[in-house]
Formats: sequence, C-alpha cells, structure tokens
Amino acid sequence: MRDIFTAELTALGEDLAAMSRLVESAISSAGRALLEGDLALAENVIADDHTIDAIERELDERCVALLAQQQPVARDLRIVVTALRISASLERMGDLARHVAAVARLRYPEKALPSDVEPLFRQMHESAARVAERVTTVLETRDVHLAEEIYRDDDLLDQLHAATFQTTLGGEAVYTPQQVVDITLLGRYYERFGDHGVSIAHRVVYLVTGDLDEHGGP
Amino acid sequence: MRDIFTAELTALGEDLAAMSRLVESAISSAGRALLEGDLALAENVIADDHTIDAIERELDERCVALLAQQQPVARDLRIVVTALRISASLERMGDLARHVAAVARLRYPEKALPSDVEPLFRQMHESAARVAERVTTVLETRDVHLAEEIYRDDDLLDQLHAATFQTTLGGEAVYTPQQVVDITLLGRYYERFGDHGVSIAHRVVYLVTGDLDEHGGP
Repeated sequence: MRDIFTAELTALGEDLAAMSRLVESAISSAGRALLEGDLALAENVIADDHTIDAIERELDERCVALLAQQQPVARDLRIVVTALRISASLERMGDLARHVAAVARLRYPEKALPSDVEPLFRQMHESAARVAERVTTVLETRDVHLAEEIYRDDDLLDQLHAATFQTTLGGEAVYTPQQVVDITLLGRYYERFGDHGVSIAHRVVYLVTGDLDEHGGP
Repeated sequence: MRDIFTAELTALGEDLAAMSRLVESAISSAGRALLEGDLALAENVIADDHTIDAIERELDERCVALLAQQQPVARDLRIVVTALRISASLERMGDLARHVAAVARLRYPEKALPSDVEPLFRQMHESAARVAERVTTVLETRDVHLAEEIYRDDDLLDQLHAATFQTTLGGEAVYTPQQVVDITLLGRYYERFGDHGVSIAHRVVYLVTGDLDEHGGP
C-alpha cells in the first residue's frame, strides 16, 4: 500500500514537471511570437493551451482520488494539497502565455510593440522564460536555492512592469491608443506570470523546509 | 465523530460565506470610490484586504486539518477540496477589488475615469456587485439557479470589457495615455472578477449536482 502511494506521489511530481515544461515552452514561444511578429508561433501557443488545461484537470482528479483512497496524513497530505495548488498556478501561467500570444496574433502582420519598447519587453520575456525554466527545475529537483532566483526575476519583472508605465506615460515617444492598451496588458500578463512562479516556489519551499520563507509565502 | 465533522463542514461553509460578504463589500466600496473619487473609501478597501487574506489562510489550514483528522471520502472529501478552491477565488476577488480601489486612490483628487466612460464603468460596477452578492447567496443557500444569473452578469462584464476597448480605440473622445492605461487595467480587473465569480458558481453547482454544467466548469 505504501509503495503504491509513493509511486503515485512520484507520478504526481512528474506530471507537475511535465506541465511546467509545457508552460516553459508556451511562454518562450509566446514571447518570440510577440517580439518577432510570428503568426504561426502565436497560433501554436494558443492551440496548445488546452493540453495544459487537460493535464490540470486530470492531475486534480488524481489528487482527489489519492486523498480518498490513500487517506494520507502529515507530509504526504501536504504534498497532495500542494500539488493541487501548483497545478492551478501552472494552468494560469499557461493562460497568460496564451494571452501574450493572442496579442501577437491580433496585430499580425504588424508587430504589436513599437520598436522603442521592444528592448523592455525582450527583458520581460527573458525574465519570464527564466522563471518558467526554474519552476520546472524546482519541481524536478526540489532544490529550494533556485527559489531565490525565481524571486529575483520576479522583482525584475515588477521593475520592468513599472518601466512600461513610465514609457507609456512619461516618455518622449507618443503611442497610439492601441499601442498603449497592448503595452499595458502585456506588462500586466508578464507581471502576473512572475507572481505565479513565486507562488509555486513558495509552495515547494514550504513543502521541503516546512517554513514560510522571508517572502511571506506560501 | 460524524457529528463533529458535520459541524466542521457547516463552519467551513459559513466562513466561505463570511469571506464572500467581505468581497461583496470590497467590490462595492471600490466601485463607489472609483466612480465618486472617494479617497477614504478607497483606503478602507485597501486596508481591509488583509482580513480577506487572513480568513483564506485560516480556512485553508482548517481544510488541511480536516483532511488529516477526519479522512473524508466521497462527497465530504469533495466539499473540503472545493472549499480550498473557492477560498482561493474569493481571495483573488478581494485583490481585484483592492486594485480597483488603488487606481481610485492614485488619481485622487481627480477622478480616474473621464466622464464619458463613467456610465460604462457604472454598469461594470453594478454587474460585479451583483456577481459578488449572488456568490454570497449561492454559498449560503447552495441555490444553483442563481448560478445562471452569475453567468449572465459575467457575460455582461465581458461585453462591457470589449466596449472599453471600443471606447479607447475607436471612439471619438481622445484620452490621455494615463486614462487609456487606467481604463485598460480597470476593465481587466472587472472582467477577471466576473471570471472568478463564475468559477465559484461552477464549483458549487458541481458540488450540488455532481454535474459539469453547460458552461464547461468547474
């Protein structure tokens, strides 16, 4: 019985990591679609999001079945409940990648971003891609030291998000209302993406150490 | 043992309803703060959000304790897991109300919204307030017919959200970049608020009927 449960918990961890790899691929492709105005790439991200949603549903059902059949307590119970929450965050990160891709698709054949804000969003894209990569690694290895790097990239995303407002509001360039809307929404999507990465990192840290970390999570 | 568990489940339901009443009050005050440029009201919403967050944390801990101590199965298990998810949505709705209030506070003593988009946001405010009210009632009564009304108001919020884009992009009025940013973000906050209301309604419907409803939830 215990062996079966251990195997189930391992499978749960592997599925979360697999889901996270899909999110990684989604945010990376979405960012490239946005920066390069690549329609096919944007459409792939949008079409593939249902796979992430499907894994979430399946994973959630298995968590509930595990709770019912194995009646875990203590740390085992915490692992299953945490898996439920992590899958919800990953699903949301997939949605946000899809939203980024949708903006790229809507503006095609134009690029959504005026060229002078491209460097800012290239940084956001790279930070978000690193967050997603490290979330996968944290889920695979439970190496809590990586959590700090996720928090750092999230801080960077917050700063870049603030910079998007400075650009649209205080900069010298004048954008069309459509560009202001797109920059505002894209900045928000990236900022939220970072928040969910932090939330997942908090949960893994809590699982491994039993402590709330200095960032006040989970 | 069973009596204790039933009492615990009842208490859980009451706490969700109490949390929902706070969300109701938050979104209602936030909208009034926004539409009337009322600084004190905005500050109250922002200051009170931590109460919603605290209830979420406490409720989540109790759910996990219930799972560990009572080892519920079948419908009881589903109730506890659903409570975990509903509290996460309510917490997020509280955050979104706080974001609306924060825009109102930032623009004070000006009003954030240009007068010609006020009617649009008054409708969003009213729809969101109705969603929040009905979420409370659904949680209190488990009357699944109310779910339909929540879906209807969410559809309305989606339409109003689309209308905010038409206003900023296609309308005759010309707004400052700050106004475009504020309208874009506020529209997004209200739209997400509706989504969370729908998600809660789906979960209650699923709990009561065991069926996924026509909206594809939960």
